[in-house]
Amino acid sequence: MAADNDFVKEITKKSVDFSAWYVDVVRKAELADYSPMKGMMVIRPYGYEIWELLRDPLDRMFKESGHRNAYFPLFIPESFLKKEAEHVKGFAPEVAWVTSGGGEVLEERLAVRPTSEAIICSMYAKWVKSWRDLPLLYNQWANVVRWEKVTRLFLRTTEFLWQEGHTVHATAEEAEEETLRMLGTYRKLAEEYLAIPVVTGRKSDSEKFAGAVRTYAIEMLMPDGKALQAGTSHNLGQNFAKAFNIRYESKEQKLEYAWQTSWGSTTRLVGALVMTHGDDSGLILPPRVAPIQAVIVPISAGNWKETVLPQAQKIFSDLKAAGIRVFLDDRDAYTPGWKYADWEMRGVPVRIEIGPKDIDKQQVVLVSRLDRKKSFVPWGTLRAELPRLLDQIQVDLYDKAKAFRDENTRDAGSYAELQEIMAGRRGFVRCGWCGGVDCEARVKADMAATIRVILDTPETGLGKCSVCGKEASHTVLFAKSY
Amino acid sequence: MAADNDFVKEITKKSVDFSAWYVDVVRKAELADYSPMKGMMVIRPYGYEIWELLRDPLDRMFKESGHRNAYFPLFIPESFLKKEAEHVKGFAPEVAWVTSGGGEVLEERLAVRPTSEAIICSMYAKWVKSWRDLPLLYNQWANVVRWEKVTRLFLRTTEFLWQEGHTVHATAEEAEEETLRMLGTYRKLAEEYLAIPVVTGRKSDSEKFAGAVRTYAIEMLMPDGKALQAGTSHNLGQNFAKAFNIRYESKEQKLEYAWQTSWGSTTRLVGALVMTHGDDSGLILPPRVAPIQAVIVPISAGNWKETVLPQAQKIFSDLKAAGIRVFLDDRDAYTPGWKYADWEMRGVPVRIEIGPKDIDKQQVVLVSRLDRKKSFVPWGTLRAELPRLLDQIQVDLYDKAKAFRDENTRDAGSYAELQEIMAGRRGFVRCGWCGGVDCEARVKADMAATIRVILDTPETGLGKCSVCGKEASHTVLFAKSY
Repeated sequence: MAADNDFVKEITKKSVDFSAWYVDVVRKAELADYSPMKGMMVIRPYGYEIWELLRDPLDRMFKESGHRNAYFPLFIPESFLKKEAEHVKGFAPEVAWVTSGGGEVLEERLAVRPTSEAIICSMYAKWVKSWRDLPLLYNQWANVVRWEKVTRLFLRTTEFLWQEGHTVHATAEEAEEETLRMLGTYRKLAEEYLAIPVVTGRKSDSEKFAGAVRTYAIEMLMPDGKALQAGTSHNLGQNFAKAFNIRYESKEQKLEYAWQTSWGSTTRLVGALVMTHGDDSGLILPPRVAPIQAVIVPISAGNWKETVLPQAQKIFSDLKAAGIRVFLDDRDAYTPGWKYADWEMRGVPVRIEIGPKDIDKQQVVLVSRLDRKKSFVPWGTLRAELPRLLDQIQVDLYDKAKAFRDENTRDAGSYAELQEIMAGRRGFVRCGWCGGVDCEARVKADMAATIRVILDTPETGLGKCSVCGKEASHTVLFAKSY
Repeated sequence: MAADNDFVKEITKKSVDFSAWYVDVVRKAELADYSPMKGMMVIRPYGYEIWELLRDPLDRMFKESGHRNAYFPLFIPESFLKKEAEHVKGFAPEVAWVTSGGGEVLEERLAVRPTSEAIICSMYAKWVKSWRDLPLLYNQWANVVRWEKVTRLFLRTTEFLWQEGHTVHATAEEAEEETLRMLGTYRKLAEEYLAIPVVTGRKSDSEKFAGAVRTYAIEMLMPDGKALQAGTSHNLGQNFAKAFNIRYESKEQKLEYAWQTSWGSTTRLVGALVMTHGDDSGLILPPRVAPIQAVIVPISAGNWKETVLPQAQKIFSDLKAAGIRVFLDDRDAYTPGWKYADWEMRGVPVRIEIGPKDIDKQQVVLVSRLDRKKSFVPWGTLRAELPRLLDQIQVDLYDKAKAFRDENTRDAGSYAELQEIMAGRRGFVRCGWCGGVDCEARVKADMAATIRVILDTPETGLGKCSVCGKEASHTVLFAKSY
């Protein structure tokens, strides 16, 4: 077993240096790699397969709620970006500019889209004419570019993949409903597929999307006590409709400005997955988004190719036919022990061992990646047992992450308490807040923590602002964040 | 029926002005629209759904043949683009350049990828070490930018969506096999899904991909007698491996340069579909890639909402449950006649009419978009009959397109014959060719026609070069092209 230990040793321990562990796992499990383009990553097949497995159900949920995909240009003329004043102020500093094309210097420089409101709204102004055209529910899967000084694989990269929904409605109420509906969709994706519990709520004005009236977010708590914003949903009000002249004729034949929303989630979700569930041995993937849900490792002893391998192949075919994402590792060049450690590092939820003894007993050994617990399962019931174990791992991962999140969500009634927690184990800190930007700014300056969300359902008993001691108008969660 | 006629009148007749008809159909059927970014189009939901319906089976075929998706950066440093001499020469004139980002002028300008060999090969140089790493079979779904002076919705746009496969092999033979395998995949997609027959073959040196040893293509013949290149597959030999230093240790422990391929197909396929099958009334979509395969139009007469509509809804649910992409058009504001013309224009393969008389007879009327032939089908057999009709339409569309292609593929034994055909009905012209670049250039200068492919299986009886009269070394297809 010496090989295993050597192998695992190559990953920094999660408990020792979380940040180094993260990069080790992402690179060693071949999820992503650095590219020659500073700040831009390469998403390798294993990482991209995870992205596909979370993208597909999200896309399905979008379609089930009446949304349709479209595709808008990568480049946005500078004059369009400038139409909504807050929007350009927020995004201009991060823009990559195209200044020549086809061998000629351009008259107007072009922004590589950091987000697509400006180009999409210019089209909506053409397409939306009557109340009959509404609601207009479009989504786009695309790459965007935001110039970043400090980057981190998946979590913050100069280019990333995302979806951006852009909808148009006849009333303010419908726009708010849509904004919250899509926030709910993100929650569903996070909790049911990624097995990560989220807190949802509204952003403070200083944290909202440039050009939005209200921004809502799903926030996750990472094992280092820092929050990760993992999806945002914006009620744009009529800001863009007025800037781009998106008007419709109402049933009463009056010309009205439309109401809009936009919402997005990104490849950052893959990073959230890695951080939340992994351990010292590497990645742990929730079965619903695991490219390989179970790996079959035949024990290569004696004449295993004649005895063990055929049965391993049969099990592989059976499980594949049952719709399980299964892989048979019949490579000659590696020992079973080495394979165990390798697949553990890659986070495959279940290992299926089969050796000569198991052939005699007509069984396999299932090993859970979560706790390495073994179970002996007869061939005849494997097709039923394996999905059950996968479902159990999915639930256990969620419960574990939720327990951590709950343990690390604390109340702070005073500024001293808030400071103490932020200097220690961090996490989410629930505070009363007077709504003042000064109080918010003070926390940021003192502790580099921000309001992650204004909670949907304010808790009682936090009547005072934890910063200034005045009457609280909101209950908020403070945290340091990615 | 006056409304119908007015409606249809808005589309230029295909027989009168093919080019104007094409733009009318693309825009009126809401497949795509012009954007404020010159040369870049917006793909609207109906067009994007067609793209999804051809992308998904293609992606499935890639995966079934062992390919995995990955994602590489949008930007390529200029120095990387320059590493392969032919490659940069071919693409540099079309590149859009990013020269500033994050508020600073960049030290080195960045190409917005026109294709990704340069960035992908730089990663392969890191990843490929041993023969055990080969073959490496990756594909990427992405947007690319090639600056174009004259653009046309779907057919030629400054930005387009595509997939680009990039593979690495241990031997020249394997690379050639892969190149031809993927050409076959494109043929399958075109013929089985798009119902468009293709000619496959090798490109002449003057038409091959910049940096390739050999380029193969699938070529389609459009109704105006011009050819459309609809997918290319390149054997890159060791050109990029040598430029980027992609070497592997062979089984014999020798360091060898690898062999590579790349292959791509684009949103241009949607344009091919429109041109090939459409008619004076608009679009005709092959059922396998039709977002709506059948539209139910209830006849809105009398108390239809109590009598006809409930049965229409039941049929809708039944067909949807059977996996058919069906739409129920129960809009109040439009007459059945207007709806017929509208859905015909949008190319829906089958219309299902149901009115009061049909309720009495417990039947529906199926109308094929292809020939408007009506059939009366009892409710009880609709679930079986409709898929049969859809399959028949798929076959008929292919046969019709193939008959046109075959009729418009002619032999030219002399230069005069070639000129005569090119001045007349055009189409594919099969010629002998001596292999000389001068002969090829002369045809291009005189008739704006090029060698579309060197045929896989040379025909006999074309022993002389149709241009210079010398001994022919190849049989080729000349055509004008998009």
